[in-house]
Amino acid sequence: MKDFIFQNPTKVIFGKGSMSKLSESINPFGRKILLIYGGGSIKKNGIYSTVLRELSEFDVREFSGIEPNPRVETIRVALNKTKGFDPDFVLAVGGGSVIDATKLYCSAYHYKGDPWDFLKNPDANPTRYIPFGVVLTISATGSEMNCGSVISKHETNEKTFFKRREIFPKFSIIDPENQYSLPKNQTAYGIVDAYSHVLEQYIHNLKDVPLQNRFSEGIMLTLIENAKPLLNDLRNYTYRSNVILCATMALNNVIRMGTNEDWATHMIEHELSAYYDIPHGLGLAIITPKWMEVVIKQKIEKLAHYGMVVWGLTGSTEDVAKQSIKKTFDFFKSLGIPMSLSAINIDKEHFESISTNLAKNKIGEIPLTKVQIFEILNKCL
Amino acid sequence: MKDFIFQNPTKVIFGKGSMSKLSESINPFGRKILLIYGGGSIKKNGIYSTVLRELSEFDVREFSGIEPNPRVETIRVALNKTKGFDPDFVLAVGGGSVIDATKLYCSAYHYKGDPWDFLKNPDANPTRYIPFGVVLTISATGSEMNCGSVISKHETNEKTFFKRREIFPKFSIIDPENQYSLPKNQTAYGIVDAYSHVLEQYIHNLKDVPLQNRFSEGIMLTLIENAKPLLNDLRNYTYRSNVILCATMALNNVIRMGTNEDWATHMIEHELSAYYDIPHGLGLAIITPKWMEVVIKQKIEKLAHYGMVVWGLTGSTEDVAKQSIKKTFDFFKSLGIPMSLSAINIDKEHFESISTNLAKNKIGEIPLTKVQIFEILNKCL
Repeated sequence: MKDFIFQNPTKVIFGKGSMSKLSESINPFGRKILLIYGGGSIKKNGIYSTVLRELSEFDVREFSGIEPNPRVETIRVALNKTKGFDPDFVLAVGGGSVIDATKLYCSAYHYKGDPWDFLKNPDANPTRYIPFGVVLTISATGSEMNCGSVISKHETNEKTFFKRREIFPKFSIIDPENQYSLPKNQTAYGIVDAYSHVLEQYIHNLKDVPLQNRFSEGIMLTLIENAKPLLNDLRNYTYRSNVILCATMALNNVIRMGTNEDWATHMIEHELSAYYDIPHGLGLAIITPKWMEVVIKQKIEKLAHYGMVVWGLTGSTEDVAKQSIKKTFDFFKSLGIPMSLSAINIDKEHFESISTNLAKNKIGEIPLTKVQIFEILNKCL
Repeated sequence: MKDFIFQNPTKVIFGKGSMSKLSESINPFGRKILLIYGGGSIKKNGIYSTVLRELSEFDVREFSGIEPNPRVETIRVALNKTKGFDPDFVLAVGGGSVIDATKLYCSAYHYKGDPWDFLKNPDANPTRYIPFGVVLTISATGSEMNCGSVISKHETNEKTFFKRREIFPKFSIIDPENQYSLPKNQTAYGIVDAYSHVLEQYIHNLKDVPLQNRFSEGIMLTLIENAKPLLNDLRNYTYRSNVILCATMALNNVIRMGTNEDWATHMIEHELSAYYDIPHGLGLAIITPKWMEVVIKQKIEKLAHYGMVVWGLTGSTEDVAKQSIKKTFDFFKSLGIPMSLSAINIDKEHFESISTNLAKNKIGEIPLTKVQIFEILNKCL
């Protein structure tokens, strides 16, 4: 086990009644609240009106229009439009995109430079961070209980992330019923995203981390067990709440205590979705099995362990490792996901430049070569 | 899954180099530090001198002599002896007893009444709580990452607990090498305590908490796997660190998210060790299998699930449930623990009054009757 530091101060308020805790949760932070949300689905499913009712005693402004793969350009607009409002607290109502955008907004509001600085320069520091909370409407990224944020820059086709301990949400209200109206495909992408987060912190070559392995395997097994039942019964509280808890636990620093991590799949997906505005979970579903195929020799023991424990496979190390890749592919496919880039009209146009860029950044536990990245992308076609 | 609220702000600093983080971890809290520790073993194993070296820039006072099963009488002495010092921060150097004593000290220092009030009255409130940190020297109770404290009152043979969100440690330094000098029996008691904490949050009748079940099973499997190797090689970093991480994760609120809990075994042990000053882990080892025997009908499905997953048993529900109890008994016994009360010179003198007291307090997920508690105790003889 490697040395590690763990701290996660976010208060998770989970369950059916949790929306009724919103007002009291914000109360200690002040009266001026900025509400940030996405494209308006919260107005259709009733979450918006519930939030406004809970906030009736506060001075509330709104900024909407956060897109999937949220852009720094949009945060700049938000900062300009709310200049002078000086919010005491920000409430993100949405999924990973809205939360990540809120994290950048709250970092940049009391900062003199451009918000993109936070993505590029660890020394970019505001005079203070605005505290914020979350009403979660899509479980996928785990952003509701971590201090990371992934932001795109449309003008240069960049997509990258920043982490700061100051941007843990103060609280996250996670009511599974708030996700009842999510369609099948978004639910499936969320499941893949959570599953992929676990793999990124699990398919490594560090020995002697048995508890972390078992926690990771526990999340994957629970996702597999609940995924198809949930997709067939989107308003089932049991399946929904199990998947939601898995997604939060998949990226809140618990399963990575003292382990190695990889993240090459995520880095490739980020680069790809900076060019093509595809859902994150969709990109991960396509790339993950192909990444496994290319790194199989470097990670064969762990892939075999994964195949045995998560998929119940038996046989030689090599066979089980290989079969575990097929099982992973089949699992994602069974969720109704189109499993190739060509199926979503992406061709090899940018593969060369993506591979060159990523190889420079040394992605993966054992950094991937340009040839390996190019091979992964080609296999995804 | 039941609704739940989860928040755990403690910063865990885990690993070989973690003692070097002590000074910088205390720095933000002030200069006047009270060091609280136990019987002096930290002077023999070098931890005391390392701590003092790290604190050389601070104004340090000391209070030592916290006993196992820490007593309110001792906290009163600590409060009297440090009157007027007004510490900015308290550092607990020890295991669960020292940490629990520190939690009560930090609650009671700025409180006008008697410290025992905190154990009896949820409305007992100090003007403020003194922040504190931990240097962990025995892994067992999980107190290093939770907000509970178990305190005994010697004069009335009472042992009870209190919980407050204000008494999470600010940080816990967990260096597995700090536990290298622990003898075999204390190491074994710590393993039983951690294992028992998991059972208390796992042997319940709530359905549909698969992730929580798997996390619990992961801890138990890892404890079983590492226990004997560690007892045969007490200075092995891998086994030691795995057991230590299990103990912390066993009682930091993660595995109990949205589940039922039982705690009858702990309540019986508390009552017993209020009369007889036995190590907590020893008492739990003796009581746990007997508790299982008495509640088997009420918890048969979950005991069978436990037997299958943790012990790899097969057969009928009843057979597997029964065998799982034997496996649990044999596991504790294999750690070198005397597995009966008579073996540690405890007779039935207080069984009647213990059973009467506990039955009044309605202990257990399905409250145990006085007859059941009496039966458990008799089986322990």
